[in-house]
Amino acid sequence: MTSAERPPSRRSAVAPFIAMDVLSAARDLEAHGHHVVHMELGEPGATAPRAVLDAARAALDEGRIGYTEALGSRALRQRIAQYYADTHGITVSPARIAITTGSSAGFNLTFLAAFDPGDRVAIAAPGYPAYRNILGALGLEVVEIETTAETRHAITPAMLEAVHREKPLAGLLVASPANPTGTMMTPEALRALVIAADDLGIRFISDEIYHGLVYDGVAETALRVSDRAIVINSFSKYYCMTGWRIGWMVLPESLVRPIERLGQSLYISAPDLSQRAAIAAFDATEDLEVIKAGYAANRRVLLDHLPAIGFEDIFPVDGAFYVYASVRRFSNDSAEFARRMLHEAGIAATPGGDFDQRQGHGYIRFSFAGAGSEIVDAVARLKGWLA
Amino acid sequence: MTSAERPPSRRSAVAPFIAMDVLSAARDLEAHGHHVVHMELGEPGATAPRAVLDAARAALDEGRIGYTEALGSRALRQRIAQYYADTHGITVSPARIAITTGSSAGFNLTFLAAFDPGDRVAIAAPGYPAYRNILGALGLEVVEIETTAETRHAITPAMLEAVHREKPLAGLLVASPANPTGTMMTPEALRALVIAADDLGIRFISDEIYHGLVYDGVAETALRVSDRAIVINSFSKYYCMTGWRIGWMVLPESLVRPIERLGQSLYISAPDLSQRAAIAAFDATEDLEVIKAGYAANRRVLLDHLPAIGFEDIFPVDGAFYVYASVRRFSNDSAEFARRMLHEAGIAATPGGDFDQRQGHGYIRFSFAGAGSEIVDAVARLKGWLA
Repeated sequence: MTSAERPPSRRSAVAPFIAMDVLSAARDLEAHGHHVVHMELGEPGATAPRAVLDAARAALDEGRIGYTEALGSRALRQRIAQYYADTHGITVSPARIAITTGSSAGFNLTFLAAFDPGDRVAIAAPGYPAYRNILGALGLEVVEIETTAETRHAITPAMLEAVHREKPLAGLLVASPANPTGTMMTPEALRALVIAADDLGIRFISDEIYHGLVYDGVAETALRVSDRAIVINSFSKYYCMTGWRIGWMVLPESLVRPIERLGQSLYISAPDLSQRAAIAAFDATEDLEVIKAGYAANRRVLLDHLPAIGFEDIFPVDGAFYVYASVRRFSNDSAEFARRMLHEAGIAATPGGDFDQRQGHGYIRFSFAGAGSEIVDAVARLKGWLA
Repeated sequence: MTSAERPPSRRSAVAPFIAMDVLSAARDLEAHGHHVVHMELGEPGATAPRAVLDAARAALDEGRIGYTEALGSRALRQRIAQYYADTHGITVSPARIAITTGSSAGFNLTFLAAFDPGDRVAIAAPGYPAYRNILGALGLEVVEIETTAETRHAITPAMLEAVHREKPLAGLLVASPANPTGTMMTPEALRALVIAADDLGIRFISDEIYHGLVYDGVAETALRVSDRAIVINSFSKYYCMTGWRIGWMVLPESLVRPIERLGQSLYISAPDLSQRAAIAAFDATEDLEVIKAGYAANRRVLLDHLPAIGFEDIFPVDGAFYVYASVRRFSNDSAEFARRMLHEAGIAATPGGDFDQRQGHGYIRFSFAGAGSEIVDAVARLKGWLA
């Protein structure tokens, strides 16, 4: 009498986020008493700065942690507007700022508000896998533009125009500094690309989550170039607040109300405690620069040793906290390589298949956001394991 | 040269969540020094219980607030399994439990994982507006089943079969106790409906967010009836943790991995601090029962006075913390009525259009989750205003 159980939806057949699966495998090992060096997640090893923790404690003492307005607390939106004035010398109305439950919510809301099913959205390969997975789950066609060393792994106006001519694009999403590579676009290259997108009627989405974490060059914001661009940012990376799930967007006027309406139903609001704590993050520059100096030292260690160990083709690490390197000297299958590295050397890192479905099998991403001692330990383990 | 700006997507044209818009209007008044009695949101006036706040403080002291696994911390999933054993005498494997960023994330992930664009999903009218809005944004056809007093505002197997025969349904979503009415299904009625859905191959989704807040009758879980049902719950209501954005789902085996994959990309994980604090919520029963007794007193005040003031057709308030009542004595347009009530009487409540697009213009929802003194104040204001 009972019918067969309905199968999962077709759209749920997105690829797993392999970094998260590596985390699960690492936690299994740890549950059995093994020590694992975590280089799989883009997650600072440091706690949130003291000012943030103190603000959270004050919020707990003060009373109710409740819903905020869907676009976020007015105080935090105001503070973020101030950040753009201070850091970039740009005036942004708080009315165009939306607080989100991490940049994850920013992507989801942006894709829903800006695009309809069947629309084509271009991203760079290699790139952050959640772009592809969220776009796919929401019925959008993902157009991966393979980048090369020739353009420092940036998408150029010529590349964009060529793809658009073939079949029109609705959107273009760019991260600079990028994940998984750390490679950055010059201000001139970004400017030219934003203008090209505007000229073609393509919505430009600028993932600026790694702003603040720059070792070489200048990170430009798309806001300086266009008021049609959607800027997505977060407190997770520079501000060390991953688990707080708190980020923001700067929106074109036309998208504020659509995003607000969608946010009301899909999220209600971002976590209140995180919103109140995040305000203090902007006053923690001194602590945060110390943490960043640690990343810079980690970066130096990896760039000094990984090539000698045998990792090749390292992308320019201008910013962020990743080294993306070829493992072809050791394996043609970086997923298998990562599994063995986890079980045999106790190092968790993310295989390139997460970031690039065509070329990723030959690459691996190491995050160097952890403690310096762990990075040094990882290098020693790798040397021993691969000797 | 520059093309016209792309318009927002068609799918972003969801209805606003009017309760949230009322909140914004109320905040505007407060910013100008007015006192507003907040009865617009389904949000406890009480802070989270002391045990929860202490657990959050301990987590802040302890160190990093980081990403957890996408399905949530193992400790919290284990604790929730224990809750089902303690409260319902049901064995649920922690492997079937997913921690979510509030029930909002539960609905989003469920709709994405269980249904494809064009699938038809039935909900009751009146009902929680986010159901309709999220379903719509995700390309699903919303089938509203208008309920009547005759069946105590419950959907019956006969009603379900009739709708399904007309054109097949993929899913059915039921809340008991319900929002905006507080009305509950008897265990027998729920059991019959879940079985009917299974028989027809319709995925049953049980919104159990108001479990624990019952004044009259017994709240049954769909888990007792079927292991195909998706159960969605949250720490927002009984546990007073709205702004923490933390909830959970119990999933059929077949949906665990699809939900995990989608969650990895769409959310990464629920807020870590909230996950750690929520574990303590299950040990706060004494505090929470005191808060619930306050709701019971508020409910009594409203049920004693609202009919005399002129509100009619009040749905059975078996649980939750809402009174849903007709305003036809005063107006045919409850949105306009709510606006006037906010500006003239300083009471924020949500017009029925949020919950029922056909009949809602004649109804209003009062939340009585606030402090007792506020509810008494509201009654006095209403008496004066409507005299």
